[in-house]
Amino acid sequence: MDRIPILKLRGLLLVTIQVDMHDRLAMQLQDELTARISETGARGVLIDISSLDIVDSFIGRMIANIAAMARVLDAQTVVVGMQPAVAITLVELGLTLPGVRTALNVDKGMALLEAPAHGIADQYAPDAHTSD
Amino acid sequence: MDRIPILKLRGLLLVTIQVDMHDRLAMQLQDELTARISETGARGVLIDISSLDIVDSFIGRMIANIAAMARVLDAQTVVVGMQPAVAITLVELGLTLPGVRTALNVDKGMALLEAPAHGIADQYAPDAHTSD
Repeated sequence: MDRIPILKLRGLLLVTIQVDMHDRLAMQLQDELTARISETGARGVLIDISSLDIVDSFIGRMIANIAAMARVLDAQTVVVGMQPAVAITLVELGLTLPGVRTALNVDKGMALLEAPAHGIADQYAPDAHTSD
Repeated sequence: MDRIPILKLRGLLLVTIQVDMHDRLAMQLQDELTARISETGARGVLIDISSLDIVDSFIGRMIANIAAMARVLDAQTVVVGMQPAVAITLVELGLTLPGVRTALNVDKGMALLEAPAHGIADQYAPDAHTSD
């Protein structure tokens, strides 16, 4: 049963990590995820790590690798659901998750990925959103 | 790390089962899920079982129980991502997952849960969808 499911949510892919990661599983996840990005044309990848009590350098590197691979396939990666204790450990270990954005939960991650590319700038443009 | 995450997706809750289920974990999932439904006012629960190669009577009963509990809390349950082999086994074992609807994937499950209560009837109403 060692397989991490990749769920398609509208234009995004959602990966929920809840089993212990090991080399082979990480490689398999990278293979499957890149294949799914190319297959579905997904523009965003959400990685939920709310089940993880520990993010060590192995998992940190795996997430950074996935983000880098997704980026060259024109998809952005957002890590969601990080436990407060994990954030503390990450900083203490000096792991910065380069190229990876984070959001508090899946909803916020989706909002981040679905926002226009210059989402923050748009918030200040008065006519950015006209709904009728 | 034995904890099944419950993700909030807009008004729905998403549970991805990817570890071996045992009694204590199933009880914990029921506890947490019912608490989250009552907390968030979610109207739907999506249970993704795409990682499961086998759905035995224990898992079948657990899903049926979760669906029954969700129903009394005014939330509907949709099982998504069932593997074809699992469908065959379920029917051969005579497990019918009473009170549980299924959908091919998360997207379709979300559409099912977000549709109005009489979604099927609406499909036959000529003016249900006017896109312009």
